[in-house]
Amino acid sequence: MKIAILLFPRLTALDAIGPYEVLQRLPGCEVVFVGAKRGEVRTENGRLGLSVDATLDEVPRPGVVVVPGGIGTRALLRDEAIGDWLRTAHETTEWTTSVCTGSLLLAAAGILDGVAATTHWAAMDVLGNLGAVPTDERVVERGKIITAAGVSSGIDMALTLAARLTDPVTAQAMQLYIEYDPQPPFDAGSVHKAGEAVLARVAELRDTTDG
Amino acid sequence: MKIAILLFPRLTALDAIGPYEVLQRLPGCEVVFVGAKRGEVRTENGRLGLSVDATLDEVPRPGVVVVPGGIGTRALLRDEAIGDWLRTAHETTEWTTSVCTGSLLLAAAGILDGVAATTHWAAMDVLGNLGAVPTDERVVERGKIITAAGVSSGIDMALTLAARLTDPVTAQAMQLYIEYDPQPPFDAGSVHKAGEAVLARVAELRDTTDG
Repeated sequence: MKIAILLFPRLTALDAIGPYEVLQRLPGCEVVFVGAKRGEVRTENGRLGLSVDATLDEVPRPGVVVVPGGIGTRALLRDEAIGDWLRTAHETTEWTTSVCTGSLLLAAAGILDGVAATTHWAAMDVLGNLGAVPTDERVVERGKIITAAGVSSGIDMALTLAARLTDPVTAQAMQLYIEYDPQPPFDAGSVHKAGEAVLARVAELRDTTDG
Repeated sequence: MKIAILLFPRLTALDAIGPYEVLQRLPGCEVVFVGAKRGEVRTENGRLGLSVDATLDEVPRPGVVVVPGGIGTRALLRDEAIGDWLRTAHETTEWTTSVCTGSLLLAAAGILDGVAATTHWAAMDVLGNLGAVPTDERVVERGKIITAAGVSSGIDMALTLAARLTDPVTAQAMQLYIEYDPQPPFDAGSVHKAGEAVLARVAELRDTTDG
């Protein structure tokens, strides 16, 4: 089973690396990082380079597609090469998935028309404008499409996906391996839990944090 | 405040990228990925390339050091360049931190002698043999040293660190931004919670998952 994780300029790294870390050790699966061209792409702020190892043309029919998000998605909503690749791959994937604003690329490709899906909390309206049905759940599974909320939710999504690709015991073995027993020091990880002061601080920092 | 995240061959990507994602947006902080030489390093299985942007010599006195883990740490326990860099940097850091088996490198450099610290659950004995006092907590803070347990625990560690570097509201803003409201589909993220079947499965898969 080939798992293609899409990389592009100005992506959010954890959107891609969370699922990668869960999926890369799954027996029978092979992860490959794909993109418009081979070589390095840089995250939003340019602080991290990640390597594209295969072009879209080289992996036309992966069994699983994972689309991460990031501010770089906005420049790709009308990108024909990525739209065509997503549509063609989706015809034969077992699973088509996204993390964060990666769902905007699936929606722009027409894959989420009328489909319940999620994205980063700050991009829900954009997702709706692109034809999907925004759904306020952390991981939304509809048929073979699984979309996840912001950034870190890709880890939860990938554990669900791992269970589908193998079995629940193997998925839990991956959870244990990455010691995913979350103990955040705060409880501010959703807009429903973060208080006014935290929401105000995010807004202040927004030009550097827009995903 | 310069935050240096160490990269090396056969690292575990999420150990580095979890903290990166939390810390990269902190006001007043600048993340740089450092390593023995500039250019690409590959994760354990070679499936992902990450870019080293600065050599150790170029960043001798970062304010914060983050050392990720991975099977590649074992080949570096007697690496003089990394040991010297860690010891010298630690003299003037505000915070010296590790994720997963990154603490083995801190211990091998003599930084954890007699200090309570943690690592990946499967490497606790190795940590003790290197002079640290293995401590079964997800994030262990002792003075200016913060060590975290396996792989995904770097996110929790980085949120604690973010609060120390800025303030709790800003740290919570980072948590909200990455939507870190964990909802794993299973509860098998620690050896105390995973059942016998899961532990047996990890052991079976061990040659590909050793971190």
